[in-house]
Amino acid sequence: MTGYALPIKRLIRELGRLPGIGEKTAARLANHILRLSEEDAVRMAESIVDVKRKIRLCRVCFNLAESERCEICLDHSRDRQMICVVEEPDSLIAIEDSGSFRGTYHVLHGVLAPLDGIGPEHLRLKSFWRPTPACRGNPRPC
Amino acid sequence: MTGYALPIKRLIRELGRLPGIGEKTAARLANHILRLSEEDAVRMAESIVDVKRKIRLCRVCFNLAESERCEICLDHSRDRQMICVVEEPDSLIAIEDSGSFRGTYHVLHGVLAPLDGIGPEHLRLKSFWRPTPACRGNPRPC
Repeated sequence: MTGYALPIKRLIRELGRLPGIGEKTAARLANHILRLSEEDAVRMAESIVDVKRKIRLCRVCFNLAESERCEICLDHSRDRQMICVVEEPDSLIAIEDSGSFRGTYHVLHGVLAPLDGIGPEHLRLKSFWRPTPACRGNPRPC
Repeated sequence: MTGYALPIKRLIRELGRLPGIGEKTAARLANHILRLSEEDAVRMAESIVDVKRKIRLCRVCFNLAESERCEICLDHSRDRQMICVVEEPDSLIAIEDSGSFRGTYHVLHGVLAPLDGIGPEHLRLKSFWRPTPACRGNPRPC
């Protein structure tokens, strides 16, 4: 990274930490960011900090959410008797993109991997099975 | 982008504006950013704002710089009698990476393109030719 001013070197290093972004791509992206207006650059920076500060896990299905419940769990038109159990939030998004599922989800945030020492206690499983008095017939709070 | 919480949608949209980053790649990067520590995310965001706020053009060669002069123009071991004229700062970096040039540079920030209405007046040319009393024999302030 010879010849780059320090703030550009820093930005290239930070972008280069993203998956699939090598030093050359990072330099190309940094050059693009340099040409953005300050307003656009600030908006991009804020969006990075925002996801860290505002996103939490939905307390019902453990999908990523901005409030206590995710948009899907808040959607009353969803069929709560159908629960699709997925490994990660990405899988949920892929199914949602297909537009063919109108039930709800449960995100495990991992899979059983006994050889790697990952047992049921490491997954978001307990809450899936815990029935609540308010929701007979539905294993989760609704 | 069905199923994503708003801050994630915003981040995917912002990342998707970068060159060569489609929506799928942006979603992958956003998922990675979600898994960073808050400290790492803040550092990445700061590095984006920093390049916009701290980087200016070197007043001698118009390379990108953190202060009035870039690192190359400040380096007294450089041969100031040799000036390599380049189109953009990227070209300068490519030559610097080769390690084979010990002169200085002049960055035009463009090329003549009469058909697109880009004439000499649109490039950083004037200052290249203006001799200063302090530097006889060298077309630029030194």
